[in-house]
Amino acid sequence: MSSTPPSARITDLEVLDVRFPTSEHLDGSDAMNPEPDYSAAYVVLRTDAGDGLEGHALAFTTGRGNDVQAAAIAALAPHVVGLRVADVCDDLGGFSRTLVHDPQLRWLGPEKGAMHMAVGAVVNAAWDLAAKRAGLPLWRFLGEMTPEQLVAQVDFRWLGDALTPEEALELLRRAEPGRRERIDRLLERGYPAYTTTPGWLGYSDEKLARLAKEAVADGFTQIKLKVGASLEDDVRRMRVAREAVGAGVRIAVDANQRWEVAEAVEWMRHLAPYDPYWIEEPTSPDDILGHAAVRRGVAPVKVATGEHVANRVVFKQLLQAGAVDIVQIDSARVAGVNENIAILLLAAKFGVPVCPHAGGVGLCEMVQHLSMFDYVAVSGTTEDRVIEYVDHLHEHFVDPVRVADGHYLAPAAPGLGAEMLPASLAAYRHPDGPVWSDRVRPGA
Amino acid sequence: MSSTPPSARITDLEVLDVRFPTSEHLDGSDAMNPEPDYSAAYVVLRTDAGDGLEGHALAFTTGRGNDVQAAAIAALAPHVVGLRVADVCDDLGGFSRTLVHDPQLRWLGPEKGAMHMAVGAVVNAAWDLAAKRAGLPLWRFLGEMTPEQLVAQVDFRWLGDALTPEEALELLRRAEPGRRERIDRLLERGYPAYTTTPGWLGYSDEKLARLAKEAVADGFTQIKLKVGASLEDDVRRMRVAREAVGAGVRIAVDANQRWEVAEAVEWMRHLAPYDPYWIEEPTSPDDILGHAAVRRGVAPVKVATGEHVANRVVFKQLLQAGAVDIVQIDSARVAGVNENIAILLLAAKFGVPVCPHAGGVGLCEMVQHLSMFDYVAVSGTTEDRVIEYVDHLHEHFVDPVRVADGHYLAPAAPGLGAEMLPASLAAYRHPDGPVWSDRVRPGA
Repeated sequence: MSSTPPSARITDLEVLDVRFPTSEHLDGSDAMNPEPDYSAAYVVLRTDAGDGLEGHALAFTTGRGNDVQAAAIAALAPHVVGLRVADVCDDLGGFSRTLVHDPQLRWLGPEKGAMHMAVGAVVNAAWDLAAKRAGLPLWRFLGEMTPEQLVAQVDFRWLGDALTPEEALELLRRAEPGRRERIDRLLERGYPAYTTTPGWLGYSDEKLARLAKEAVADGFTQIKLKVGASLEDDVRRMRVAREAVGAGVRIAVDANQRWEVAEAVEWMRHLAPYDPYWIEEPTSPDDILGHAAVRRGVAPVKVATGEHVANRVVFKQLLQAGAVDIVQIDSARVAGVNENIAILLLAAKFGVPVCPHAGGVGLCEMVQHLSMFDYVAVSGTTEDRVIEYVDHLHEHFVDPVRVADGHYLAPAAPGLGAEMLPASLAAYRHPDGPVWSDRVRPGA
Repeated sequence: MSSTPPSARITDLEVLDVRFPTSEHLDGSDAMNPEPDYSAAYVVLRTDAGDGLEGHALAFTTGRGNDVQAAAIAALAPHVVGLRVADVCDDLGGFSRTLVHDPQLRWLGPEKGAMHMAVGAVVNAAWDLAAKRAGLPLWRFLGEMTPEQLVAQVDFRWLGDALTPEEALELLRRAEPGRRERIDRLLERGYPAYTTTPGWLGYSDEKLARLAKEAVADGFTQIKLKVGASLEDDVRRMRVAREAVGAGVRIAVDANQRWEVAEAVEWMRHLAPYDPYWIEEPTSPDDILGHAAVRRGVAPVKVATGEHVANRVVFKQLLQAGAVDIVQIDSARVAGVNENIAILLLAAKFGVPVCPHAGGVGLCEMVQHLSMFDYVAVSGTTEDRVIEYVDHLHEHFVDPVRVADGHYLAPAAPGLGAEMLPASLAAYRHPDGPVWSDRVRPGA
């Protein structure tokens, strides 16, 4: 525990445009993202507390536009710089609501797109700072809050027809017994993961089969394939993957929004012989009614979405409409930890499992805390729940995720886990870091 | 008609951050926007055609964040500068799809928020240029396109379960007879308007009553009141307004997203004795199911929304779910003229009238063209259709809207109408124009 002087204030909000030239190797390629450069609009909150603690977090993007994302984060500096550290860290619910509901900035959403992701990055940086001050990894910091404290984190605006504060409190109280045992279980065993590493669209069949087998040997019980560019290729790749892993391993498929509603149903009919577990992002992430129709059309295959779902109001409707079997939260799309607590509570209310989206850069590091918190204090179970794992770019983090025997091991270092190594930040800064200044990349 | 050399290219995309200190007078105040500074992220496309023609358009914001919006527009420059003018202006459908679906920039949405509004501004500037090259105001330029040409403007992605290209073509062909008569009718009489001028939250009852009476005397048959901050005040203001205008004038009310679903129904029950015509933005603009529930709860009062609806996919669902009686397009929220054509076609398919949102700065100037086009070539009627009118800031435009006897007069100048006077752009540039450099405004 840090003993911050009561007068300590946030003195600086720094934003960095950090990009990795991942498009050069086709890692991360899918039907909608043919050549992403995984990027971070990276934020650092500094204080005059003298305790050496900083808040680090990031918004993830895929390259172009990372400068826009950085500008959106910078626009929040006047709301943050000068605040007392204790005021922010002791009322993160109030802090997040102030940023989300700024009456001018919200015009750029409301609560969606670059401005909302910027709020998420700054809110997450404040949680990082708060957890570090408490000397706890975020999942433990959250897992030690009382139900009342947790409910105070949530912005219930526009949730009234699905989840009231009283219902949220009841859900959290019901999960209180057993928190200690579940924490111990996580410390022992970790949290189940699945891997997307074998299934990128740009990979050959041979590479797909080899990586799929390696995944099973590494203890994963679920893998994921990108689909949606070519039906013929997808049928072949799905067969290759199924032959590689055998009948006992789940294979999820992910269309990255590529299809119309009827097209999704038809395409999945051709993959059905190979027993896909879920179809992820079959169509527009805004299309609640479309997802509901796809779900009716592809059952018993499950429908999953969420990485591009803009906010809790859209998640609320996906649940109300019975449009999804799996809620995929993302650590860096919505307004940070607070809005993700709201989404975890909504999912628990509707009895739908949460299987986070991760990958990119830093998303695994951040989102593991939310799933572990969900297990400890909200859903109380890991049944049918898995966190996505992609083995990209972890080497740039101070405390990278550790995955063993198909599980995320519980992080022990204080904070959110998004802090990157100073050498990486310096090398990959766009456009002036040496990695980029050495390249000529039109439009990048 | 300009005779552009075939080799002419777009040479420059300039972005200006232009803000008006409207918060000082409470014009434009409502339940969610207590002190907006109406602002424009203003874009100019220049060419080397030598014909003196430029494309002008703007994204509207309410102050803070206008710099973020400008950065989002600037991020599109590499996609635009260097293109052949003829290629852009002869295939505006293809041009808009290229910007909307950039595989990296779309991560910041997809198709929502600051990045999508930026696409809208740039696409609209291209339409301005194209209409100027044709020597026609935008509504005439659109109104002279064949059904086939209009269908080619539309991005049908994710609309397949509601509107196919064939259905769109059929709708447009059905409206072809009578185009000439409707153009003549617009040139004679204009397009019906309603006014929001009397009803801002910050106004006294006396000012409300006086302005409401003036509106009726000026020929308006519909006015609008902002509501949602205080039920007691709203009941009193609604009574004042009804007494001022009498029984024959429609009074719409606008909650600017302030309510929960049940709260909207209950609040409207108290206003019902004064016969409100529609309730606008009762709740979150993302809440399709919520709007459907509100509509069931407040009938026969109509439900309207759209100014913050992010894209055609959300409009599609509002129509599929029977959630709205009125579709409110906005010229500067979605991806420009092309996406608004899609929304007009969706509304026509579902038989729902379109009553645009306007006001702000430049929104009246731009959106009048879309309603006039809708009348000429899509819906073929002005029945129960009115364009919002607010008498703010028109003096800054080269070709300001003209409203007479409760109608928008058909604009005659070539282009989209968003071009501002050079002196206004210079004076209101933020933060360096004299209007702002003379002020000390923390956080502005």
